[in-house]
Amino acid sequence: MSDPVKFYFDFSSPYSYFAAQKIDFTVEACGRTCEWKPFLLGALFKVTNSQPLTTIPMKGDYCRHDWERMSKMMDIAWTMPDPFPIPTQAAARAFYWLNDDNPDLAKSFAKAAFARYFGEGRDITSADAIAEVAAPLGVDQDALLAAVNDDAVKQRLKDETAAAIDAGVFGAPFFIVDGEGFWGNDRLWMIKRWIKGEAA
Amino acid sequence: MSDPVKFYFDFSSPYSYFAAQKIDFTVEACGRTCEWKPFLLGALFKVTNSQPLTTIPMKGDYCRHDWERMSKMMDIAWTMPDPFPIPTQAAARAFYWLNDDNPDLAKSFAKAAFARYFGEGRDITSADAIAEVAAPLGVDQDALLAAVNDDAVKQRLKDETAAAIDAGVFGAPFFIVDGEGFWGNDRLWMIKRWIKGEAA
Repeated sequence: MSDPVKFYFDFSSPYSYFAAQKIDFTVEACGRTCEWKPFLLGALFKVTNSQPLTTIPMKGDYCRHDWERMSKMMDIAWTMPDPFPIPTQAAARAFYWLNDDNPDLAKSFAKAAFARYFGEGRDITSADAIAEVAAPLGVDQDALLAAVNDDAVKQRLKDETAAAIDAGVFGAPFFIVDGEGFWGNDRLWMIKRWIKGEAA
Repeated sequence: MSDPVKFYFDFSSPYSYFAAQKIDFTVEACGRTCEWKPFLLGALFKVTNSQPLTTIPMKGDYCRHDWERMSKMMDIAWTMPDPFPIPTQAAARAFYWLNDDNPDLAKSFAKAAFARYFGEGRDITSADAIAEVAAPLGVDQDALLAAVNDDAVKQRLKDETAAAIDAGVFGAPFFIVDGEGFWGNDRLWMIKRWIKGEAA
């Protein structure tokens, strides 16, 4: 059986939010599965000397407008959140803690966290906010709050982030299909063609 | 009659080369015309404090691979040129000089210049190289060489570059449809939908 397609994202990345709506369906329609892998874009930006899109002259204004426009074209809820961007350690730690036992539950949690932040514009920085997101999914609140502050879980996220950077991930969303990297929500069409062997 | 869709590009931009293959057909299939507007990416980079893609850590390697992959998927000739990037003043000045009299000839010249640089990997920096590109199109060589060194033509390119930046162009390729900006070869699908009024 083939390795899953890897979907690298940060919970504070708008284009990751858009990609998250479609990636599972896109990949599964090609007979593959998808593994979600949140990481910390801030840690990557330190390595690449990059900065959040909204702080870049000209491009920042363009992107704010583009997110609004993209949400309408994709028919997806959109509220530009404030604050933006945010630290996403709590969300990403909760994800990996859930993912080890139940990847489907972890994806449901990720979708709910994305929906709260970019759909409703409500902050998901704090562990308490993350616990609220997970509650309707039947996740034990005390266990989740403990996990988010657990040293092993903290280290796990650091390791996942370092591994992503080692694998060549330089932005979000980023996809790796059998070692082949694809950057951006704009490239789902190319991922489909790559999987189907229509690449060359 | 509607304003033409504007296609902003630099002759040294690989993604502009890819976009140039399709933009006229894409726009005309939606009942609109397309105006090509070369500008100097280097002048823009000074304003935005940006740098050529190939010099950016991680992203540079990705892009070199992506251009190869994109050329195969689009079935377009590709040779990674060396030197890259190059100054494109001669090409862009020749374009505007041709364009004032004959926009179709200017587009044919632009396609030939792109084909020589990115298709064959041959340099197009010098005025002599540009004259060679234009020769098979029946362009008078002495007149072209004079135009490339003409102060008014030089100023024209500076003005076009400044106007592009004023219009919000922050990269290449960039498209403006009735004031609405779109960045990147990846967004041709969105331009089609925008023109057809399927945006919201």
